[in-house]
Amino acid sequence: MTTPLNETGPNPSTSIVNAMHDTSRIKHTFLAAKVMPAAQAASLIQDGMVVGASGFTRSGDSKAVLAAFAEKAEHDHTRITLMTGASLGQGTDGALATAGAIAMRLPFQSDPVMRTIINEGKLSYIDENLSETAAHIRNGFLPPIDIAIVEAACIEADGSIVPTTSVGNSAIFVQQAKQVIVEINQAIPLEIRGIHDVFLPEDPTGRAILPITDVWQRIGQDVIACDPQKIAAIVFTNQKDSPAETASGNAAAEAIAGHLLQFFNREMAAGRLTPALRPIQAGIGKIADAVLGGLAQGDFEHLTMYSEVLQDSTFQLIDSGKMDFASGSSMTLSDQCYQRVFADFDRYRHKIVLRPQDITNAAEVIQRLGIIAINTALECDIYGNVNSSHIAGSQIVNGIGGSADFAQNSYLSIFVTESVTKGGKISRIVPMVTHVDHSEHDVDVIVTEQGLADLRGLSPRQKAETILEHCVHPDYHEELSGYFERACRRGGHTPHLLEEAFRLHTNLAQTGSMKTQVLESI
Amino acid sequence: MTTPLNETGPNPSTSIVNAMHDTSRIKHTFLAAKVMPAAQAASLIQDGMVVGASGFTRSGDSKAVLAAFAEKAEHDHTRITLMTGASLGQGTDGALATAGAIAMRLPFQSDPVMRTIINEGKLSYIDENLSETAAHIRNGFLPPIDIAIVEAACIEADGSIVPTTSVGNSAIFVQQAKQVIVEINQAIPLEIRGIHDVFLPEDPTGRAILPITDVWQRIGQDVIACDPQKIAAIVFTNQKDSPAETASGNAAAEAIAGHLLQFFNREMAAGRLTPALRPIQAGIGKIADAVLGGLAQGDFEHLTMYSEVLQDSTFQLIDSGKMDFASGSSMTLSDQCYQRVFADFDRYRHKIVLRPQDITNAAEVIQRLGIIAINTALECDIYGNVNSSHIAGSQIVNGIGGSADFAQNSYLSIFVTESVTKGGKISRIVPMVTHVDHSEHDVDVIVTEQGLADLRGLSPRQKAETILEHCVHPDYHEELSGYFERACRRGGHTPHLLEEAFRLHTNLAQTGSMKTQVLESI
Repeated sequence: MTTPLNETGPNPSTSIVNAMHDTSRIKHTFLAAKVMPAAQAASLIQDGMVVGASGFTRSGDSKAVLAAFAEKAEHDHTRITLMTGASLGQGTDGALATAGAIAMRLPFQSDPVMRTIINEGKLSYIDENLSETAAHIRNGFLPPIDIAIVEAACIEADGSIVPTTSVGNSAIFVQQAKQVIVEINQAIPLEIRGIHDVFLPEDPTGRAILPITDVWQRIGQDVIACDPQKIAAIVFTNQKDSPAETASGNAAAEAIAGHLLQFFNREMAAGRLTPALRPIQAGIGKIADAVLGGLAQGDFEHLTMYSEVLQDSTFQLIDSGKMDFASGSSMTLSDQCYQRVFADFDRYRHKIVLRPQDITNAAEVIQRLGIIAINTALECDIYGNVNSSHIAGSQIVNGIGGSADFAQNSYLSIFVTESVTKGGKISRIVPMVTHVDHSEHDVDVIVTEQGLADLRGLSPRQKAETILEHCVHPDYHEELSGYFERACRRGGHTPHLLEEAFRLHTNLAQTGSMKTQVLESI
Repeated sequence: MTTPLNETGPNPSTSIVNAMHDTSRIKHTFLAAKVMPAAQAASLIQDGMVVGASGFTRSGDSKAVLAAFAEKAEHDHTRITLMTGASLGQGTDGALATAGAIAMRLPFQSDPVMRTIINEGKLSYIDENLSETAAHIRNGFLPPIDIAIVEAACIEADGSIVPTTSVGNSAIFVQQAKQVIVEINQAIPLEIRGIHDVFLPEDPTGRAILPITDVWQRIGQDVIACDPQKIAAIVFTNQKDSPAETASGNAAAEAIAGHLLQFFNREMAAGRLTPALRPIQAGIGKIADAVLGGLAQGDFEHLTMYSEVLQDSTFQLIDSGKMDFASGSSMTLSDQCYQRVFADFDRYRHKIVLRPQDITNAAEVIQRLGIIAINTALECDIYGNVNSSHIAGSQIVNGIGGSADFAQNSYLSIFVTESVTKGGKISRIVPMVTHVDHSEHDVDVIVTEQGLADLRGLSPRQKAETILEHCVHPDYHEELSGYFERACRRGGHTPHLLEEAFRLHTNLAQTGSMKTQVLESI
């Protein structure tokens, strides 16, 4: 329900706007009348509503209204469906889940509190490929959006919204929502305007050609178009994004990076890659950081990125002169990097672009650009299937995110993981993964600190031999190669022994370790 | 190694060309000199070579040279890598496998003899997404092609090849091969020229925009360009494709079709579909046939198809006036339909097009056109994951084919299967599939003769409830819902009990039936 604006002039209530609010960030004449406290804006959110909120990898998310809604819901037991771009910062998802405010959450979250409540079956979660949510909304496969909540740097004279540090699904939310709540974040410098490229297909039932043929190519507008009549509330905030969780690298991460850089060198020697490689997509985490850090050291040049998230390492590569351009859907930075980037933003503005996630993760563009995708596996099996999301096939960690969008469509799909974890009690290479996010068809290379398995052009049995030779931790080599040999004796294209395919996992559940001798010693 | 043509005039050996050979099908002046018997052409294929042969769903395949090569290999133990479009007819794959002539086969096969040898581990098979082989060749991820063998209707004056009933990977094979063997099949009427649309990206390292925005749009040439210097042999044949294996529908197939047609009607009532539906992709088989047959009866009109295979049902829909246009990579028809179509080919030529399989199965085009994909599952699990290829996780049946290309990128991804098989001893709905070809993210609808589960917008637990309610056979309902309830008590986003996830399968291996009571009665 659109609340019509008072077209005759500013509403008297604007006089109560806090003097700390920089109302020059609202360039539309009458919209200043819509400024209100977060709690008042949150009261627009009613039981059963579907809310689409900005935020992608903890960037550009609602800082005030969702938090105020969590407080309200704790008292009035309002429950909503909450869609976002991806994960939220500020502990917002945890607060909402604790308040019982969420009936359904999609397409991604990474909050430990919400994760627990999801795994308890108390909160329905749709873990979606990040490219797909916009299409599912457009196609009517998801319920219509009542309210969009979007963080903005400012509102233009025509009502258009200038996003902040992410685009995510904000444009489709604003387009489809009946009402829009804008959070103007004064902590975001206005210089951010211009780094966004917002493209929405013109035909709502079909999909246009996405004419991106180079990472730096712009195909849309630098703002999110918004009918000012739909803006029901404006809330001022002054709060930075939650900083990126920077995990310092370890020896295993360095070893993985080393194997991968050697692989790139071999591919260059074979004439399949140049020193510019191909546009890179990298997931978040210490291994990806170590790999990108390694690129700064090697003989690489004119690198580009076509990824979801621009991280510290992206800006380090730009600073070192190794990276020419980076396209993403968000910037998720440490405090230190954030300050450096925004202190000298003109240095970066022509080298980055933030796009909607159905564009950053579009199969069409990923295939056309020939991306090198580097993502983290939770576990891999000996045939090259990858689990990115579930422990013991049951407990979700975060979700599939954009990993399948990239793995399925990239030029090279690389998965990295340490060969063991929990002090060696868990092997990340197993006979059969307990949950498949990426089938062997979408996995070209697996790298652990032990080595690199190049799976291209191999049959399943050949893949197993390569993974066993290069990737498995020595403590698990006998167990895994024994499984493979016995399975091969029974036969099959992809030999398995179903009665013991999950023995490592059941060992772990029973004894606290996957290692068989621990079981036998009981 | 290209064998240079004798540019001074026809080779004297052309005089031995069989009088039955219609040499007017060779319009290039000097190429008649390359006509030879199949055995002589097969002798060009040497040990260790990589051969790319035409053929897709048993259509447009080599009728003579591969068979002659199988005979030769039986004596001289030559072994090759054989790539095709998809499956071959004529028992060729079986003969080659029996002769021990194949070291590596890709990307698809469906021959029962070859299947057995693959499952015995004696023949390496790469089961690939059908869209991907051309890119893998172009990128150098597969070994370079020595010889292409392509069935043709005729050779044009510039050496271009007019394909027959399939395009498959023939264009990339001809482009990349050092030598080309052409089989001119005189059983194919010359009227076939013009139904092909052959597009190869101009940039060999990248991928061009594929500007198809309607199923009937042509973006390429109607022939396969070929340097006549590369044509090392021409063999005449006069043999039809192996006819389609037409399985007559049964009550289960009819019931599945009925559920699906009701679903389409509900989608039309909800305004998400029109009577033209969306372009349809359908796998091969009696269920897909029953569904397409049902479309001829309902209130549908101006239907289109963007699929891999044009089948009898495609032409029935064209004949009934319900289907305006069909795009595929091959025509795989029964003898009766084949005769009907070629007896009056002008009636159909403007309503069909055959394209390379990296175009029919391109993510970009499938997404843009908004395909309704209907594929057959071998087994589904209660969370909506689908196995299309492996029995007991180990024994391959055929392969993934194009099912993932379509399931991942379609507007609606539908999987059909009977709820049980082998007289009820096998439930096709299981707690956990033993092999994942399509993750729950790529499966929108599952249909059995019991009913239809619409999985859109549901969490994993909700998907399980829907599948249990609508798709499971009554004989297995208690077993499967018991598993789900116990797993939910243990918890998780996707609750599983790893120690018994494959109990139905181990029951089957031990007792010949998945049913638990059979086990208990022992």
